[in-house]
Amino acid sequence: MNTDIQHMIQTKARKAKEGMRVLSRSSADIRNNTLLAMSEKILKAKDDIQEVNRFDLENGKKTELAAPLMQRLLIDDQKIERMADNLRQVAALPDPIGEVISMRERPNGLRIGTVRVPIGVVGVVYESRPDVTVEVSALCIKSGNGVILRGGSEAIHSNTILARILSDTAAKEGVPDAIQFVDTTDRQAVYELIRLPEYIDLVIPRGSNEFVQFLMKESDIPVLGHADGICHIYVDEAADLEMASKICMNAKVGYKVAVCNALESLLVHAEVAKKFLPDFCKVLHEVGVEVRGCPQTQQIYSEAKPATEEDWCTEYLDYIVSIRVVDDIDTAIDHIETYGSHHSDAIITESYSASQRFLKEVDSAAVYVNASTVFTDGYEFGLGAEVGISTQKLHSRGPMGLEGLTSYKYVIYGDGQVRE
Amino acid sequence: MNTDIQHMIQTKARKAKEGMRVLSRSSADIRNNTLLAMSEKILKAKDDIQEVNRFDLENGKKTELAAPLMQRLLIDDQKIERMADNLRQVAALPDPIGEVISMRERPNGLRIGTVRVPIGVVGVVYESRPDVTVEVSALCIKSGNGVILRGGSEAIHSNTILARILSDTAAKEGVPDAIQFVDTTDRQAVYELIRLPEYIDLVIPRGSNEFVQFLMKESDIPVLGHADGICHIYVDEAADLEMASKICMNAKVGYKVAVCNALESLLVHAEVAKKFLPDFCKVLHEVGVEVRGCPQTQQIYSEAKPATEEDWCTEYLDYIVSIRVVDDIDTAIDHIETYGSHHSDAIITESYSASQRFLKEVDSAAVYVNASTVFTDGYEFGLGAEVGISTQKLHSRGPMGLEGLTSYKYVIYGDGQVRE
Repeated sequence: MNTDIQHMIQTKARKAKEGMRVLSRSSADIRNNTLLAMSEKILKAKDDIQEVNRFDLENGKKTELAAPLMQRLLIDDQKIERMADNLRQVAALPDPIGEVISMRERPNGLRIGTVRVPIGVVGVVYESRPDVTVEVSALCIKSGNGVILRGGSEAIHSNTILARILSDTAAKEGVPDAIQFVDTTDRQAVYELIRLPEYIDLVIPRGSNEFVQFLMKESDIPVLGHADGICHIYVDEAADLEMASKICMNAKVGYKVAVCNALESLLVHAEVAKKFLPDFCKVLHEVGVEVRGCPQTQQIYSEAKPATEEDWCTEYLDYIVSIRVVDDIDTAIDHIETYGSHHSDAIITESYSASQRFLKEVDSAAVYVNASTVFTDGYEFGLGAEVGISTQKLHSRGPMGLEGLTSYKYVIYGDGQVRE
Repeated sequence: MNTDIQHMIQTKARKAKEGMRVLSRSSADIRNNTLLAMSEKILKAKDDIQEVNRFDLENGKKTELAAPLMQRLLIDDQKIERMADNLRQVAALPDPIGEVISMRERPNGLRIGTVRVPIGVVGVVYESRPDVTVEVSALCIKSGNGVILRGGSEAIHSNTILARILSDTAAKEGVPDAIQFVDTTDRQAVYELIRLPEYIDLVIPRGSNEFVQFLMKESDIPVLGHADGICHIYVDEAADLEMASKICMNAKVGYKVAVCNALESLLVHAEVAKKFLPDFCKVLHEVGVEVRGCPQTQQIYSEAKPATEEDWCTEYLDYIVSIRVVDDIDTAIDHIETYGSHHSDAIITESYSASQRFLKEVDSAAVYVNASTVFTDGYEFGLGAEVGISTQKLHSRGPMGLEGLTSYKYVIYGDGQVRE
């Protein structure tokens, strides 16, 4: 154990908490002006940011980072614009803090209400995309939370300069210390971070499944994150098959393949399997998607490889899909409840009753009728942005936006009431 | 390690989850009728319950249980009536499940809403009061949650018969297995319970501070509970001193002494300390409350013992109060933020500005103006009942009623939308 790292994380966490106290009491004007000033600073510092970004890109080349990861790492002019724009957009969102959620008068004359407040300090652990540094900071400043950012080693140089611009600007605008960046790539930093419940109120991990699971198990602080995204589409006997094909293709390959809300397992009602699967599997094959099917699927589409029990539990994040033919909607729902990860699941149907049963009985963060699962996203859901997607049922579920970064407190107005 | 206990808890947890699936899909009518049937059964089984209760009372005598604990253990006619009444009251509350919390149409025509759903399975660990078995079961049945009850060893016989009556009635009404009772007093049962995230979604402990802290540290499942109740009242320079005296006495000894929302530390503005403290401390002395004060308090009230740093951090739950004279409201708020437990804190003042600052800057579950802290309670707050009080800021904060036992899911109605 390196006591320097321990000391550094403790210092940053304590500072984040001090900064949070000032920020959480600041007016919406101060918080919004801070975001607008950050937006301008990012645009002005474009050349510096891109120069530093080149170090990360060169390191990426040396370590033979895959092309999609290199693309995520690159900060081109467009990405600079997007970061600046994101900050302005978050500034324009309604202020979540201070909202009176409820207020009622009790028989004894006490007026008891709930008011929205920041959570406190949030620790965010994320990977290659440097824009996450900006997105997450924006949401935390807006919602009055302190934040400790821990980015991936691939983006350490880019993240460091971005975080410095953001925290310097915040200090100039009168809300110092609320943004803290961990500028070591040593893994120990994360282990220290999850051991500080006195300073940090919530840990939000964005990363591999194993990593999130590990944090959930080890952390002394509540962890909110999704562990898995095994998403299903069930093509009902009453489905519009053309719509089903369009939606399933979109959910598998139309948006992105390696995302948590992409289709992994397709369930098809036996009544329509023979009509639907041959053409659909052909299209899948054409775009390079491997099909792994149940025995019935293999009978219909002979090129399908056999799907094992493990396939139903696997988040491929790849050009692979598992397909099972089911006899009825009950089997489909049971399959989803047994093998799914409670992330995003859809039914394609024109049947009113089937749609209602699916919406009620599938216990997932997002349950769809006749739409693609890849819509599960803070922007798409109209939350403005998101710090992550939760598949837990406590606190925030699904895309976690500004409201997910808040708690509430009871405020009680009395005029001398005592309890007997 | 006793593998029988491990197996027993696993079996109960799995059954609770199966039962929860049926319960969570049942109509409000079924859930309410179940509660009404339970109420009748409790009344009818009065003699049996009281006969069994005598075993616990006799054991209590043998083990020399303190008088207040014996009182909590006793199930007299009045308590039977109260349990039956509680079940009827919970049945009469609005149904929390299925409520459409929000619904909006997105530019692409998707209608995206949030709907209230049960959390799943809740593990509740509690102590001597057998009525908790009934209260918690009522709230869980109403909110569609499975529950695993783990009561204290003092009340094992009473809890066993109550839980059997409740679960038998639930089974007869068509919602079997949702209520599971752990009928061993072996501590291992609790350790097994907190290791089953695949079956249990939330642990709610009601017990000693050390015990709750221990569970929070050890559990693989989210734990919601209050760790401490170090509650403050700040008597401002602009306070109505008569009101202050009445409220402080009520918060210290007027309701109950050994409760989490009772007053532990009193802060008095220096401007009014000489006028307020002499009479107030005399009244405290008359009812047997020991005063531990800061040097200024000791100057004003010479019988005060010196308050140490430890006193400011202590939840006495006893006839003791610590008193500090402060120079201004900033010092009062700082003191509360430094030493408090973020449970319930009050200001007594006629100053509008002081009341607003206190409400905004004190970061506690319940913040009061001119009322006694002991109102922090589900019934008093109009929630109908509570399963516990949370001092955490995630999910449910303060008294946790039916809404605290729910989550939500996104439901998305489309007509073929795909994402580009």
